[in-house]
Amino acid sequence: MELSVLILAAGKGTRMKSVLPKVMQPLAGKPLLSHVLSTAKALAAKQTIVVYGHGGEVVQAHFSDDTELAWALQAEQKGTGHAVQVALAQLAQTGKTLILYGDVPLTTTVTLQQLLALVDDEQSLGLLTVNLPNPTGYGRIVRDNGLVQRIVEQKDANEQEKQITEVNTGILCVPNRYLHQWLPTLKNNNAQGEYYLTDIIALAVEQGIEIKTHQPQATWEVEGINDKVQLANLERVYQRLQAESLMRAGATMIDPTRFDLRGTLTIGMDVSIDVNVVIEGENHFADGVIIGANCSLKNCRLGQGVQIKPNSVLEGAEIGAHSMIGPFARIRPQTILGEQVHIGNFVETKNTLMASGAKANHLSYLGDSEIGARANIGAGTITCNYDGVNKSKTTIGADAFIGSNASLVAPVTIGDGATTGAGSTITKDVPANTLAVARGLQRHIEGWQRPRKSSK
Amino acid sequence: MELSVLILAAGKGTRMKSVLPKVMQPLAGKPLLSHVLSTAKALAAKQTIVVYGHGGEVVQAHFSDDTELAWALQAEQKGTGHAVQVALAQLAQTGKTLILYGDVPLTTTVTLQQLLALVDDEQSLGLLTVNLPNPTGYGRIVRDNGLVQRIVEQKDANEQEKQITEVNTGILCVPNRYLHQWLPTLKNNNAQGEYYLTDIIALAVEQGIEIKTHQPQATWEVEGINDKVQLANLERVYQRLQAESLMRAGATMIDPTRFDLRGTLTIGMDVSIDVNVVIEGENHFADGVIIGANCSLKNCRLGQGVQIKPNSVLEGAEIGAHSMIGPFARIRPQTILGEQVHIGNFVETKNTLMASGAKANHLSYLGDSEIGARANIGAGTITCNYDGVNKSKTTIGADAFIGSNASLVAPVTIGDGATTGAGSTITKDVPANTLAVARGLQRHIEGWQRPRKSSK
Amino acid sequence: MELSVLILAAGKGTRMKSVLPKVMQPLAGKPLLSHVLSTAKALAAKQTIVVYGHGGEVVQAHFSDDTELAWALQAEQKGTGHAVQVALAQLAQTGKTLILYGDVPLTTTVTLQQLLALVDDEQSLGLLTVNLPNPTGYGRIVRDNGLVQRIVEQKDANEQEKQITEVNTGILCVPNRYLHQWLPTLKNNNAQGEYYLTDIIALAVEQGIEIKTHQPQATWEVEGINDKVQLANLERVYQRLQAESLMRAGATMIDPTRFDLRGTLTIGMDVSIDVNVVIEGENHFADGVIIGANCSLKNCRLGQGVQIKPNSVLEGAEIGAHSMIGPFARIRPQTILGEQVHIGNFVETKNTLMASGAKANHLSYLGDSEIGARANIGAGTITCNYDGVNKSKTTIGADAFIGSNASLVAPVTIGDGATTGAGSTITKDVPANTLAVARGLQRHIEGWQRPRKSSK
Repeated sequence: MELSVLILAAGKGTRMKSVLPKVMQPLAGKPLLSHVLSTAKALAAKQTIVVYGHGGEVVQAHFSDDTELAWALQAEQKGTGHAVQVALAQLAQTGKTLILYGDVPLTTTVTLQQLLALVDDEQSLGLLTVNLPNPTGYGRIVRDNGLVQRIVEQKDANEQEKQITEVNTGILCVPNRYLHQWLPTLKNNNAQGEYYLTDIIALAVEQGIEIKTHQPQATWEVEGINDKVQLANLERVYQRLQAESLMRAGATMIDPTRFDLRGTLTIGMDVSIDVNVVIEGENHFADGVIIGANCSLKNCRLGQGVQIKPNSVLEGAEIGAHSMIGPFARIRPQTILGEQVHIGNFVETKNTLMASGAKANHLSYLGDSEIGARANIGAGTITCNYDGVNKSKTTIGADAFIGSNASLVAPVTIGDGATTGAGSTITKDVPANTLAVARGLQRHIEGWQRPRKSSK
Repeated sequence: MELSVLILAAGKGTRMKSVLPKVMQPLAGKPLLSHVLSTAKALAAKQTIVVYGHGGEVVQAHFSDDTELAWALQAEQKGTGHAVQVALAQLAQTGKTLILYGDVPLTTTVTLQQLLALVDDEQSLGLLTVNLPNPTGYGRIVRDNGLVQRIVEQKDANEQEKQITEVNTGILCVPNRYLHQWLPTLKNNNAQGEYYLTDIIALAVEQGIEIKTHQPQATWEVEGINDKVQLANLERVYQRLQAESLMRAGATMIDPTRFDLRGTLTIGMDVSIDVNVVIEGENHFADGVIIGANCSLKNCRLGQGVQIKPNSVLEGAEIGAHSMIGPFARIRPQTILGEQVHIGNFVETKNTLMASGAKANHLSYLGDSEIGARANIGAGTITCNYDGVNKSKTTIGADAFIGSNASLVAPVTIGDGATTGAGSTITKDVPANTLAVARGLQRHIEGWQRPRKSSK
Repeated sequence: MELSVLILAAGKGTRMKSVLPKVMQPLAGKPLLSHVLSTAKALAAKQTIVVYGHGGEVVQAHFSDDTELAWALQAEQKGTGHAVQVALAQLAQTGKTLILYGDVPLTTTVTLQQLLALVDDEQSLGLLTVNLPNPTGYGRIVRDNGLVQRIVEQKDANEQEKQITEVNTGILCVPNRYLHQWLPTLKNNNAQGEYYLTDIIALAVEQGIEIKTHQPQATWEVEGINDKVQLANLERVYQRLQAESLMRAGATMIDPTRFDLRGTLTIGMDVSIDVNVVIEGENHFADGVIIGANCSLKNCRLGQGVQIKPNSVLEGAEIGAHSMIGPFARIRPQTILGEQVHIGNFVETKNTLMASGAKANHLSYLGDSEIGARANIGAGTITCNYDGVNKSKTTIGADAFIGSNASLVAPVTIGDGATTGAGSTITKDVPANTLAVARGLQRHIEGWQRPRKSSK
């Protein structure tokens, strides 16, 4: 049966206390709804419909690149049944529909595939249930001879039913034919005046359609998020899973509970990640990469044996094999480093290419520059790449030696093998193998009187 | 009944292995006793008496500003009964007294209010008890027909009594009349030769006074601290509570177990705090503030949409809306930044005012300075504010452009719209809209011989 | 009985997904095998034999300094019995042997001493067992009348035996006489075709030798490591133990779960360690040392009252009493600081001696230098210690004042009480009490036209 996925994502999330609609709250750096959509994508559905409502324009704008998504507006929130109703017009007449929730981000694809496998004709309906040690507040699954008879809500449950620990997760798979048949018949004659999707369980049982159930591997798969405490809980679950997955792939993690990956990371062998590292975007670490404590990396490709020392921040870098970076390095986007490049403490690079063996070990700013192989950039070197309106380029040749505290006023070229004296401001090109000096002569004033404490 | 609060705070805390008296050990940056005093204050007591002893001068000095506190010296530590005895002379004759402990820091005001509510005349005594899964070592609450009969200590308990899981917390509320009556009658005919406050329970029962009990919400409310392991445990409890409270108020916390607040923080909507942030003193974060990983902040007010990037350290700053700070920024006291100010990596500010739109993006020290709107401070700029004895001021006008690696020798003024050349040492005022350059001319030495390896 | 220790360390550790042999995987910065060897050393064995195999050259090379170790090559891995067989030729004929495992790193010396005490003649064999809530997969200890009869493996256990929660740890103590007698008789007629050391339990029972058992204090003492998840788990156990040990010694640890010690640390009184500190190598912190958040230290000796502010990285430093370092300081090896030295933000020192009261508060690089008492190093000072091939020394006298943005071209000496002007490049020695200035004159260009946006 062809699959439709329906994602209920219209809620406001009042308890989030946020201007963002609930499904846009970030988990591991991307909206809750993104997680659900990724899972849905993995199921290869024929159609995916998002029921949106609160903050709809923000939600739709965020996912505007995904042209395969269909959207159904739930202008008023009148219950889960109502949410499905507003999507009916777009829903295929045949096949089956998986109903997911934009605020339940961590259901695994495997669990959902197993649920979907239960429904392969129009004789059954698949329901994801979970056993909770403390089921108070949840709708209980009432069975007779093992067969699901109905879902009874907390307030309607008798003492015996309250003992039931198997509860409804809300995630279900229904043949589309029945959604089209049942949804228009739902009643809202309850205290809240809402239409409940779970009412279809009773309708199914009435029609002799079997309710097949499946349970997830872990409770967190079906946990929804209503406030920031729950959001933080699932953030930690997600991060623990990612750390474990990296360790299974061979990464040494000094403390998997102090690791955050908000994006993707592929690794070679013998990658080691110290405590409190945060990784964002898309990243690859080749064999033997070592990341020190308290580093943040975003969109970085690190070659074999690259070592990032503690307290460094890198973004948008491609770093060649056996380079050493940090501590206290700041690597900004469009930094491309060759092999065995050294970037030391309090050094910032941006839009800079350094060829193999080049070194900038201390207190420098290298922006919009191209630095040749084995060049040595002295401590305190600044590429003056900005004149207030334009950015210009600094080119430093292979084997050049830039003296300390240099100011290189771009556009400027230092030739191969050239040397600049310490403390020089270089405004003109320096030919290859030439020494350039630009500084004042040293004068001495003997018997000079030190400043005295001024009377204030 | 009017309330007196008596806080027992005379213990040495030998197991703390510290020169500080036990009640001065810090939890969340302030002494244990401070926490108890804050709780007591919230109860609006008529009098608060601290029984002090070990390290008394340190304790009294720390709280010398609190002129409402009364102090009673317990020169020798001869038991809890003795501690109350030394305070009797100062204790009101009427009303009731709540007895607290300087090393039990996290009892909530709510719990104590509920305990106090049990004692509204001289016919009853309030006792805070708690149920422990493993009560070994604690004084058990022996009841008959539900009524408290006595407290039996571990060593005196028979097998049946040892099964009792309800134990004494030591926290109680007693009509002052009885304290004055009973305390002088306590005996110390026990192995330790100490006077036990708990002996008054038996006296009360003898006199037909009912022992009413109350239990706290959580066990940590009544946990005492005797060593650094227990101190760390309660530090974590306290921090978890604070993180949860901020999340309930709407903060997004990427990892609530990696958050420390040692002071106060008020927040607007949509504040997001990344991992491993430490906050001290009094702080306010307006709507949309984002704090990156590994930042420390103390006494900061951050305007709407301010973004603090990872690995920054800020103290005593007031930062205008939509400013961006860090990574690796060091903001020191008396830094006041306007709106949309940018402070970048390896930049330090101190006693500095930057008007809206001003930028200092790299490797600079800005001390004792005032910087106009939209001024651009080049990389490597140093305000030379100190001549060895005096601090002087640097003034930079609006729209000024300070070239890289500048040394601005204070006192000095750079006019509005003025420019200074890269690598210049500016010792004299620069008029508005003027270019100032102060550096050596560039000379080239062709065919210059590079240094060779010296033979050592 | 004299003690031999036999350590089985030949496994590859396929699930580690590493080029390193399993026993070389680091826990707290040193190989798993190192931990086992340290424990063995504490038992004062007469001989210690390591059975090596996979990656043997790496293992032997790492421990080549330990000349007391004997090595036995297990070229093929044919079971634990086989591993002991290959060591027999080197094993003493008399005495007893403790059999340990190179991938079980955290067994305590106390536990092993208690196990060894069970075997004081040739009438008994000592076996370390442990009770597991879920023993599935482990060899169960089958007893009759309390006496160990045999070990039954999971796959051979009947339903009753599967209920047994006491399992074999593999750690045992056997009189050498029996090892020599039994090991050659082991059979490998099992599915894996391996020789199992546990088969000797049956042989012992047959011969009427009593199997005496002992249990460790905690399960982690006998946990083996087969993958990176288990490695991370035991890393955390080990770090928790170290944090707790430091707290018992009096250290205040703000969060013991965010602390890493990979080496040794001895402490005085009232040492306080903030969150997320990583310590490596050998270190001593004297009384009153305070370490801020997110600091990394390696091989440091810190004097009384030294304060290391957040986000600092120190290695190989000796720091005098009451010095203040950081935040954002980088102290590199061979840094020796006197008392009350101040090193501030974005300052790097290397091979540098600073006498008491000297200060370098901002944005400086001090390498290969010697700095006198009370000298003040201005912001942005760079010692130009490297000419591309040689390192040279900078000497700065007592009470000298180095102006900001100075470049000190080594070798160079600044005399006692001398001053250098801001922005100066000092290439010649400066006599005592002299002012040296080396910079260009300031010129003004009025009506200067700012650069305009270039059309690109």
